Amino acid sequence: MDSKYTKMAMEYRNLIDVLMGDKDYADIVLYNGKIINVITREIYEGDIAIKGKYILLVGDCKKLIGPDTLVIDMEGKYLSPGFIDSHMHFESSMLTITEFSRLSIPSGTTTLVADPHEIGNALGPVGMKAMADEIDSVPNKVYLVVPALTPDCPDLETAGYDTNSKDMEDLLNYKHIIGIGELQGFSNAKHVYRNTPEIITDLLASTMYAKSKNMVVDGNAPELFGAELAAHIISTGGKCSCHETTTKEEAVEKLRQGVYLFMREGSTQRNMAECIRAVTEENMDSRRCILASDDMVAADLETSGHMNDIVRRTIKEGVNPVEAIQMVTINPATYFGLEDIGVLAPGKIADIAVISDLEEMVVDAVFIDGKLVASKGELLIDLPSYTYPDEVKNSVKIKPISERDLEIRAEGTTARVRCIELIPDQNLTGKAEETVRVYNGVAQPDVTTDTLEIACIERYGRTGNIGKAFVKGFGMKSGAFAESVAHDTHNILVVGTNIRDMTLAVNRVIELGGGIAIANNGRILSDMRLPVGGLITDELSGHEVSQKIAELERIAREDLGCKVHAPFMHLSFLSLSTSPTWKITDKGLVDVNNFKILSPTI
Amino acid sequence: MDSKYTKMAMEYRNLIDVLMGDKDYADIVLYNGKIINVITREIYEGDIAIKGKYILLVGDCKKLIGPDTLVIDMEGKYLSPGFIDSHMHFESSMLTITEFSRLSIPSGTTTLVADPHEIGNALGPVGMKAMADEIDSVPNKVYLVVPALTPDCPDLETAGYDTNSKDMEDLLNYKHIIGIGELQGFSNAKHVYRNTPEIITDLLASTMYAKSKNMVVDGNAPELFGAELAAHIISTGGKCSCHETTTKEEAVEKLRQGVYLFMREGSTQRNMAECIRAVTEENMDSRRCILASDDMVAADLETSGHMNDIVRRTIKEGVNPVEAIQMVTINPATYFGLEDIGVLAPGKIADIAVISDLEEMVVDAVFIDGKLVASKGELLIDLPSYTYPDEVKNSVKIKPISERDLEIRAEGTTARVRCIELIPDQNLTGKAEETVRVYNGVAQPDVTTDTLEIACIERYGRTGNIGKAFVKGFGMKSGAFAESVAHDTHNILVVGTNIRDMTLAVNRVIELGGGIAIANNGRILSDMRLPVGGLITDELSGHEVSQKIAELERIAREDLGCKVHAPFMHLSFLSLSTSPTWKITDKGLVDVNNFKILSPTI
Repeated sequence: MDSKYTKMAMEYRNLIDVLMGDKDYADIVLYNGKIINVITREIYEGDIAIKGKYILLVGDCKKLIGPDTLVIDMEGKYLSPGFIDSHMHFESSMLTITEFSRLSIPSGTTTLVADPHEIGNALGPVGMKAMADEIDSVPNKVYLVVPALTPDCPDLETAGYDTNSKDMEDLLNYKHIIGIGELQGFSNAKHVYRNTPEIITDLLASTMYAKSKNMVVDGNAPELFGAELAAHIISTGGKCSCHETTTKEEAVEKLRQGVYLFMREGSTQRNMAECIRAVTEENMDSRRCILASDDMVAADLETSGHMNDIVRRTIKEGVNPVEAIQMVTINPATYFGLEDIGVLAPGKIADIAVISDLEEMVVDAVFIDGKLVASKGELLIDLPSYTYPDEVKNSVKIKPISERDLEIRAEGTTARVRCIELIPDQNLTGKAEETVRVYNGVAQPDVTTDTLEIACIERYGRTGNIGKAFVKGFGMKSGAFAESVAHDTHNILVVGTNIRDMTLAVNRVIELGGGIAIANNGRILSDMRLPVGGLITDELSGHEVSQKIAELERIAREDLGCKVHAPFMHLSFLSLSTSPTWKITDKGLVDVNNFKILSPTI
Repeated sequence: MDSKYTKMAMEYRNLIDVLMGDKDYADIVLYNGKIINVITREIYEGDIAIKGKYILLVGDCKKLIGPDTLVIDMEGKYLSPGFIDSHMHFESSMLTITEFSRLSIPSGTTTLVADPHEIGNALGPVGMKAMADEIDSVPNKVYLVVPALTPDCPDLETAGYDTNSKDMEDLLNYKHIIGIGELQGFSNAKHVYRNTPEIITDLLASTMYAKSKNMVVDGNAPELFGAELAAHIISTGGKCSCHETTTKEEAVEKLRQGVYLFMREGSTQRNMAECIRAVTEENMDSRRCILASDDMVAADLETSGHMNDIVRRTIKEGVNPVEAIQMVTINPATYFGLEDIGVLAPGKIADIAVISDLEEMVVDAVFIDGKLVASKGELLIDLPSYTYPDEVKNSVKIKPISERDLEIRAEGTTARVRCIELIPDQNLTGKAEETVRVYNGVAQPDVTTDTLEIACIERYGRTGNIGKAFVKGFGMKSGAFAESVAHDTHNILVVGTNIRDMTLAVNRVIELGGGIAIANNGRILSDMRLPVGGLITDELSGHEVSQKIAELERIAREDLGCKVHAPFMHLSFLSLSTSPTWKITDKGLVDVNNFKILSPTI
């Protein structure tokens, strides 16, 4: 047996010696607290003794106090295990792990399980491993669940890298990676199952490998019931989560069929209030109910908090506070097999949230690995900003485009065209037809009917594809904006009232090496670099990102007349080829339900 | 990636194709049942569809019925996941795994987690692996958790093999072995911690290795609270069970500190009614409450059932039936990380107990791996008896002893002697002193004061030790009996009214190669061979063992005048050097609390 086990044994031996009164004392005793026991679902008075990074004892810890023990009076505050966000994407915040952690730790979040799905599409294993490397430098616990497939629909879009089962052994044995992330089996991607069955078999090989290593396989099964839900569950190897449940009926069905119900409650999509009715109305055992943010923007982390705010909202729905806290502690820890966290008990890691107001989930202080890291919302430790290596930058590998590249050719003086219909606050779109004028053989956008042009430019230098169509719903009166954030393959998306500004905006994004750009009347009004995979900035803090996004949104609204709030986020989902009805990818206008590419003109 | 994952993928792919309506149908549909959902803690009407060994779907399964599907009308009976016995010893039943399974499967038990602690003491890894090998031939699921230390108290007793951390890598990578069994850290074995600290460090190295492989480490922590309980928990790596909890207060304490509470309810020791008060009176979350039998004799399995009977008793204590069933299904499956069993859901193994009366837990039929294996208490499948290889037989490696070997020498005409005091139905003993007569320099047993001689003969040929002392409590008027079952090192124990019959009984056990023998007036009255490690018979069925033990007990009672019921079991625990107060091992009379050997005479 390797000597490392003997070394680990000595570490534990020291804890035992303290407890047996033979040697030394606790480093810290949190005295006079109220223990939130997420195992027994109780609250009672007690102390917590800490030695190194471990909890020694929970209860009466007087005997473990020695002359050098730091004794902190908790003044009757609540002591909870640190919170876990069980499903999230750093890319949604555009922040590095470091900057996200800087904002989330003071609110009591001590563990993040992230799906680097976006950077995986852009850069493949290189990008996902770069993210895993960053984890080494943060004080909180961060784990990754990696995509088994990029892109989601290989026949309909081009990603920067094609991830599949060939990559799994390498990825799943890399540090901090604990499983496979949101597998889209038979719901969003039913057409994939029907049209490219070999993909399903390849995914299954990946999930079988993860299963053999006792790793998790997260799922993603909106609107599935009965046999189709069962097929999805089996495609994950039989144990999975779903974070895309939006109705009580779905929540009931999924819990009954064994799915771990990740109730999503992020910056835009909020499904907890519906899902929780399975517990509050049907009185179901909540051990498999888990809260997750999925997508959070920096501004919300700054102003509202993170998992503490989600727990607060859950309590407001009528859930017992300890039961709600179970959903961000013991429940996810059990699901992920993270045995050392999620409960306050001897031998567990001392990740602790000190709560001064339970109903409002006001987090007063946070301990990670037995150290006080945050107090009154302020991070107390030094957390240097993290710079990513060059290999994950410069992911935009194409030359500037010309206006001609964006032309939608048509004959005659008018043309009947197909328009994606944006639906506010949804990933789903509608579909519409419109008549536009044709000048010099080019179909023209028309602000009077809110018929704008939309294009998706393959940016990895793999195909040179440019998909083009029309879109309704942005309401812009002039100009264009472009971005390298475009779910899930993250090519460059652009929407605009004219080809000149569109071209300008796209070329600025190319020049930036990824990011967001707004053009109007032949000049760039503002831009923001996202150098890491074209998705994340390692140059700005969370606060700076919030301010920059707010500024860009203001310009889009005031200078371009855009009527949609969060226009960059809305645009970014118009390329999501796994959700109905019409989408735009580098391959063209996608008819999602029929799994085919349509011409923009009829 | 290994091609085996592609092969596994195809197996799951077939299930998906059935569910998607593309190919084939269910093999079996259990129609018109009541689903016991241990995930949501509900009961509702539904069907279960099975394909091969897997559950396809739970709910409305009509669409999965094809022309060749076997449709069985459940007539409203309850469908539960098969039951798990989370902590048991085959050796206690003296049965092979095969014979135990024959008796337990019809009562709904589909999974057994056994600790081969006894055969481990007798034979070491060879014995434990032989047991793992037998598992290959039974239809139910059997897993082993192996001892990290034999004997428990190396300074006080001699086992057939000294197991320690050097054996762990080999053992924990052997088939069917899923962890370490009942680690006796700081409770029973507090004196070990005090006197042989190097053993604790060695144990910790073993538990660290198990932890690194995500394997379980069962604990064993009677009467521990606070810091001592915490020390014990940490010695297991931070996640452990305890199956020796006897009071509500202990149960509350252990659940609060994170211990998985195995509520023991076997043939002799029954602790559930006390432990369950943590749930029924304190309303604690019961997710870490688990039922286990620990020690079952064949007769009880035959007449009362197994885990179904334990669940029945738990329901009688006021527990909701589904919550009680959670304690033998999802709760232990979660603890052990047995992801494929313990719930009825798509993709899980179709191990199902059909229950006709929920309150009385009458099991009507049992499915294992999707096959009907028992109905109305009868096993429906062929289960050939299993014969162990020679390498685990002939574990008694000593020559016959002589009467002189058992003499307790003393001077004068009377002697003051030390007597172990047997306490009915307890492993604990008392201690007493008595005056006995001395003939020819030998202290004599005296039936008038119920002062009998007891001896423990090392049987592995390692030391030739014979420990001798006196004992009170058996009440025998003549004769002697001996056995090679002697916890935990399983040397030969003998108790008798005279040295001649004691010698005769011991020599018969030696001649049998292990077993039980009763002698009276210079002749053997009856005996029973236990050829496998001196502990188990592979020659008799469960029913035959029951009858044989009943016959031996009748002879002990009627011919020898023994007043103790279950005398062989009581005798076998008088060598258990981990439980107070005085015990006998091959090294002599053990003062357990003071960790030393006492002379039988004062």
